[in-house]
Amino acid sequence: MFSPSPPPSGLLERVFQFIDLHQNEFVQILKEWVAVESDSVQPVPHLRQELFRMMALAADKLRCLGASVDSVDTGFQQLPNGQTLPIPPIILAELGNDPKKPTVCFYGHLDVQPARQEDGWLTDPYTLTEVDGKLYGRGATDNKGPVLAWINAVSTFRALEEDLPVNIKFIIEGMEEAGSVALEELVRKEKDRFFSSVDYVVISDNLWINQGKPALTYGTRGNSYFRVEVKCRDQDFHSGTFGGILHEPMADLVALLGCCGPQWHKDSRGSARGCLSLTLQRVWGSLVDSSGHILIPGIYDQVAPLTEEERKMYKAIDLDLEEYRHSSHVKKFLFDTKEEILMHLWRYPSLSIHGIEGAFDEPGAKTVIPGRVIGKFSIRLVPHMNTSVVEKQVKQHLEHIFSKRNSSNQMTVSMTLGLQPWMANIKDNQYLAAKRAIKTVFGTEPDMTRDGSTIPIARIFQDIIQKSVMMLPLGAVDDGEHSQNEKINRWNYIEGSKLFAAFFLEMAKLHL
Amino acid sequence: MFSPSPPPSGLLERVFQFIDLHQNEFVQILKEWVAVESDSVQPVPHLRQELFRMMALAADKLRCLGASVDSVDTGFQQLPNGQTLPIPPIILAELGNDPKKPTVCFYGHLDVQPARQEDGWLTDPYTLTEVDGKLYGRGATDNKGPVLAWINAVSTFRALEEDLPVNIKFIIEGMEEAGSVALEELVRKEKDRFFSSVDYVVISDNLWINQGKPALTYGTRGNSYFRVEVKCRDQDFHSGTFGGILHEPMADLVALLGCCGPQWHKDSRGSARGCLSLTLQRVWGSLVDSSGHILIPGIYDQVAPLTEEERKMYKAIDLDLEEYRHSSHVKKFLFDTKEEILMHLWRYPSLSIHGIEGAFDEPGAKTVIPGRVIGKFSIRLVPHMNTSVVEKQVKQHLEHIFSKRNSSNQMTVSMTLGLQPWMANIKDNQYLAAKRAIKTVFGTEPDMTRDGSTIPIARIFQDIIQKSVMMLPLGAVDDGEHSQNEKINRWNYIEGSKLFAAFFLEMAKLHL
Repeated sequence: MFSPSPPPSGLLERVFQFIDLHQNEFVQILKEWVAVESDSVQPVPHLRQELFRMMALAADKLRCLGASVDSVDTGFQQLPNGQTLPIPPIILAELGNDPKKPTVCFYGHLDVQPARQEDGWLTDPYTLTEVDGKLYGRGATDNKGPVLAWINAVSTFRALEEDLPVNIKFIIEGMEEAGSVALEELVRKEKDRFFSSVDYVVISDNLWINQGKPALTYGTRGNSYFRVEVKCRDQDFHSGTFGGILHEPMADLVALLGCCGPQWHKDSRGSARGCLSLTLQRVWGSLVDSSGHILIPGIYDQVAPLTEEERKMYKAIDLDLEEYRHSSHVKKFLFDTKEEILMHLWRYPSLSIHGIEGAFDEPGAKTVIPGRVIGKFSIRLVPHMNTSVVEKQVKQHLEHIFSKRNSSNQMTVSMTLGLQPWMANIKDNQYLAAKRAIKTVFGTEPDMTRDGSTIPIARIFQDIIQKSVMMLPLGAVDDGEHSQNEKINRWNYIEGSKLFAAFFLEMAKLHL
Repeated sequence: MFSPSPPPSGLLERVFQFIDLHQNEFVQILKEWVAVESDSVQPVPHLRQELFRMMALAADKLRCLGASVDSVDTGFQQLPNGQTLPIPPIILAELGNDPKKPTVCFYGHLDVQPARQEDGWLTDPYTLTEVDGKLYGRGATDNKGPVLAWINAVSTFRALEEDLPVNIKFIIEGMEEAGSVALEELVRKEKDRFFSSVDYVVISDNLWINQGKPALTYGTRGNSYFRVEVKCRDQDFHSGTFGGILHEPMADLVALLGCCGPQWHKDSRGSARGCLSLTLQRVWGSLVDSSGHILIPGIYDQVAPLTEEERKMYKAIDLDLEEYRHSSHVKKFLFDTKEEILMHLWRYPSLSIHGIEGAFDEPGAKTVIPGRVIGKFSIRLVPHMNTSVVEKQVKQHLEHIFSKRNSSNQMTVSMTLGLQPWMANIKDNQYLAAKRAIKTVFGTEPDMTRDGSTIPIARIFQDIIQKSVMMLPLGAVDDGEHSQNEKINRWNYIEGSKLFAAFFLEMAKLHL
């Protein structure tokens, strides 16, 4: 943790005092919200009802603050088994429309991952329970706590009978954990209405990379997910009866996924070690070599070059590599320095092979020659890579490799998912405002982070409404989103509420 | 089909006439035996009861022939779930012990694979149904028909009140489809008692490689089944959160299964095409290249060289390659000639990759980095390869390949199953007798075949009782053992009964 922030003056001081004084009430509301089993993942009617109840609770809360609230019905979710379930309404709410103030739209979600105490929870997941300053409960950090922190900030201005420094909008959904069904369509539909006045979008749905030091997140990787099918025939073969005379699909597939021929590749990926080396290396492989380097020709061409400014930003980040490695239960990473590790998670692409469908995957021994197998792998994309360019490169490469095998099997490659990477301009006003607010509340500069995984919502907002998007997390690295014993620290929740309030004031100042 | 055999004279003529005249009775007994659902694969008590009933029926039948029958209790089968089921008795029976006659022991089994009409049977699988001379029913060809054909042959001599030309022994089990539980142990135990007087073992549990031309089988491939585990940690990773900084176990594994580095290999495998070429080829791979060649160093060293005599035998085999390819639903085989195809199924080893355990194997997309994956592959062994030599070669090779990757993961290779190949001396008396009997009954020389798959029982008999073992199949290539609409042709069943009778007489002649 950090030294207490210097005493703020005037309005800010009163806001902070109010939040400190009323923190138990804020925790109490979080407890009420966590008590609702708003699980969107398990498609069962009674949980869907809980989701509707959750959204109604939130709409009421916002109305009490004086917001005009629209609970938008977005129809039905089609389940793989043919059934349908109603989608909980998406809340569009607004507070204030002073043309002289900037309008900040907050995105959050109130649905949660499934949780059952018998899966290893030490407390009932739907009863927020405080132990040593940690508030345990499903959704505490993902994402009910941060949504409430934003609401707490707004309600504090209300309670103090102070004007809100900015116009506030909310878009709150209840299907994030189930893939944000219907969200993109609604954003598109509301582009010229609800979103027309929005200047900034703030998302608070990720975590710090530290336990005590705040972060500001300006990018997420994209993802191109591939499926490569190799087929001899639909039925499997017996390896005794056919072994030795077939082009076996599994042999083709492991060659496509693994390595299978000489290639020259240009090592143009920057790294803290070798920095933009352009030496030619001879590599024998198809997808990725044992140093994690992707072998698909051209794949690194669009990767944004590393700037000196960026390098400094990575250097400034607090990360205890040994502690990180230890808590990850990994013996050794591919890289030895903090900068390399973070860059390869955030600013360089990666390729992971996920598995094979159609082959023998159970315990024990089965002497089968699978007749048709499907390899799955995906590439995490970074600026300025583009899903359609990557798609073409991967297809060309695999077709080339396959053609060299002279196999009589059929190969089909398809990109089943293409999500662009997202990166914000950290010189935008809201990033400056957030940095200042963080400095005020926490007394420190934030870690400037990205997220190695793909959070499509940021890119969706950026693409559709074409405004600055910022991710401003409140939770600590050990909050355990999606896992057992999810929690948010009381400190993070309360200081986070202050952070949002300070952010409103900083935004207003920058807008003068 | 072939031209009718020349009219046999004397005893043989009477035997054949009797069999022809009583063929409907023989079919009727087969119908009664097929009616018993003696499924040993599904471990459920009521099916196990049916198995016991089946074995009792067979014991009764043999007693009626005057055999002394011992139904040996071999205890209980341990199921993976911890439960136990009683093992049906193994029948040891004998008829005659004239020291002047050779003693031939017939091995067969009376258990069957599961069958349900709704899986695609056109008739009830447990009601033997004749359509166009085809007797459809589960177990008709595998193995109740052949067991009865042997019994029919014996009973014909009995009915004609003729001395049996040879001493006959039977070993009939009820657990073949479930892995011949308890059989090997019993054979070992009875080595110096029941088997001490046995001169020859005949197995009739495989098929011809043609629809109308008989075969005589003198070899089966062995099998070394491997499991190679690559582990980073027990839990999986999220590919967004960890992709780019790990030695991913799947990348290691596909490199181990696929190809991953330059190697020199000596192409010393014989083939009808390139016949024992010793050129050096540069190959980039780990297990097997795209021409089916196994890349493990030394693996071909023990393979028996191809002799001129053998080559002629392959040439003589009837196989319509186009028809075979077509009925296999395969666009193209690795080889273009009959001889190459058969040699690569029977007399050369093959390597098949079966699948991967622990990776993502379901439909759809999951962005997981599996933390621990297990590749499964096996090598079909041929004379004079040896499972323990192969085990050492595979382990050394994979360890070498893995060490080149500098991966921080743990790799473990183990051979989970090692079954030696089997090959008989086709100059043994019983092969000569069988050839003559085939010539007499079918008017043709048999196809001299091997089986590409592993039938451990032949090797077990050969190893333990150290006598000549022969596989003398009765069923046609399209009988569909293990699949829907299994059948035996009436012609095969009846001529097969004659074949066994003629074989007894030929054996006696050779023994003079």
